[in-house]
Amino acid sequence: MTLILALDFGGTKLAAALVNVGSRKWLRYERRLSPVGANASTDLEIMRSLIYSLLEDAKPAAIGVSFGGPVDASTGTVRLSHHVAGWENIPLKGLLEEEFGVSVGVDNDANVAALGEHRFGAGQGYDSLFYITVSTGVGGGWILNGQPWRGAGGMAGEIGHIVVDPSGPVCLCGKRGCVERLASGPYMAQNVREILENEPQRRGGFRDGEILRGLAGDDLTLLTGQLVSEAAAAGDDLAKEVLHKAAWALGVGIGNVANLMNPQRFVLGGGVTKAGEDFWRVVRQVARETALPEVDFEIVPAVLGDDAPLWGGVAIASM
Amino acid sequence: MTLILALDFGGTKLAAALVNVGSRKWLRYERRLSPVGANASTDLEIMRSLIYSLLEDAKPAAIGVSFGGPVDASTGTVRLSHHVAGWENIPLKGLLEEEFGVSVGVDNDANVAALGEHRFGAGQGYDSLFYITVSTGVGGGWILNGQPWRGAGGMAGEIGHIVVDPSGPVCLCGKRGCVERLASGPYMAQNVREILENEPQRRGGFRDGEILRGLAGDDLTLLTGQLVSEAAAAGDDLAKEVLHKAAWALGVGIGNVANLMNPQRFVLGGGVTKAGEDFWRVVRQVARETALPEVDFEIVPAVLGDDAPLWGGVAIASM
Repeated sequence: MTLILALDFGGTKLAAALVNVGSRKWLRYERRLSPVGANASTDLEIMRSLIYSLLEDAKPAAIGVSFGGPVDASTGTVRLSHHVAGWENIPLKGLLEEEFGVSVGVDNDANVAALGEHRFGAGQGYDSLFYITVSTGVGGGWILNGQPWRGAGGMAGEIGHIVVDPSGPVCLCGKRGCVERLASGPYMAQNVREILENEPQRRGGFRDGEILRGLAGDDLTLLTGQLVSEAAAAGDDLAKEVLHKAAWALGVGIGNVANLMNPQRFVLGGGVTKAGEDFWRVVRQVARETALPEVDFEIVPAVLGDDAPLWGGVAIASM
Repeated sequence: MTLILALDFGGTKLAAALVNVGSRKWLRYERRLSPVGANASTDLEIMRSLIYSLLEDAKPAAIGVSFGGPVDASTGTVRLSHHVAGWENIPLKGLLEEEFGVSVGVDNDANVAALGEHRFGAGQGYDSLFYITVSTGVGGGWILNGQPWRGAGGMAGEIGHIVVDPSGPVCLCGKRGCVERLASGPYMAQNVREILENEPQRRGGFRDGEILRGLAGDDLTLLTGQLVSEAAAAGDDLAKEVLHKAAWALGVGIGNVANLMNPQRFVLGGGVTKAGEDFWRVVRQVARETALPEVDFEIVPAVLGDDAPLWGGVAIASM
């Protein structure tokens, strides 16, 4: 019995899972929220307790790790986390190899999730794919010739920060109209909030923001991307407009990527992609219109959900 | 003495060259303009005469071919030419192999030029690069892991048709604000022509269109991308504005590609890139602003000029 241990250091949650080589079902699985005020040390401590609880007395043959932030995959060193303090230059691979005495592979979550979907999910049998996660951020991971493509400095896949509307709103990165600025959950919530605050005349109609306000309990700071999706599904025109713009941005981004790299498949995961048929219809239509007619591709939903980074960890550990 | 024969079927010109394996200098070289009203048959006849004139009685060990249009590189079949009639589904590799009895490789000009610059030019020693030609069209070719990346259907590299300004002018492809629509030579000429025709008040100033009109001999239909560059260099504000917009479009495109693929180098060739220091400064600055701060890259001029496809042909023949 050969065991693989997969770890997922997300921005807000920690997960670990154990699987028998060749199996498609977790043997054991643990998930924990990162506490408020977490730092690298507390996250590492929690993860260690998850690991020992999973392993009992067993020893894994290898460990594969997904990290929610930039990683130097060649050395397995975390560069930093945008969500949790203290991760600067932590040699995560080295720490785990020393403690558990087995080989460890570490990469960033988008690359690892891409590998997970490629090996165990919506990308099985496809040599070239681009995995895109649309969630609190927008990121991506490449599989080309059946292998991860990380870029010369490990920075490939940043579809969230390609510009699709140079006259659009300003993104945290400083540019205008990035895909992430229009399509991430928090930015969708911000967009409806700004319209409701700045265009009070739009607050009147039942179908134009009222459903949104109802869902947020009149406290606009409570709006989330998910509430925007729910309001759109319930017929709120303002929510539909903002969600449509998100789908448009993603569609332009995907069409541009198709022209540039011509992969077989785009695999889309993350909370925002659960927004329903209308969202998917716009993404697919705009991507098709943006790509040249000779460029073929499919856009399909990810199938591994929140477990994609863990399954990618299994793939990394088996490489 | 092992001879390699390289052929370049451009849209308006035909070229052939012969080289000793390992040499960086052509042994013999022939170039001919494609006649007005050329079709696939006449181009093939002219190329045959060039080849026999080059070869004299020698026999090459292999032949590498650059074709100015979509090619199925796996079979060496031309899909079509956008410039010359009759090239639909011509099995160019098969025809040449039958006639010359040696192995032949065929690919489209952007991919072949990328390979040429990688093996013999500005991309030597770089594992990942994107070659961009900015000329009558805007196209690109990838080298990743030291090998061409052609895409699942051979369509990768179409940076000319990624959208950088969704409210920009309409491109032949049907979309608005493609890189090619703003940065190709003919479209730059069209852009100044339209401004001169539609904004007659701009015709007054010496520095605002007058230099352009002088260069075109008052016949605006004679304007070219090169004349726009010359007028900009001579201080014509209108020409500078249009050239600046072209450089901006190219810079946004390059920055987006850097975020997405993180290659080491961008190698830029084609007539428009000879527009001078101002053009290059804007391209580099906008690309740097568009890419995330963590994404490193260089933008350098191609060094093989019009011979890049021929040197790429040598590389293909040696693969």
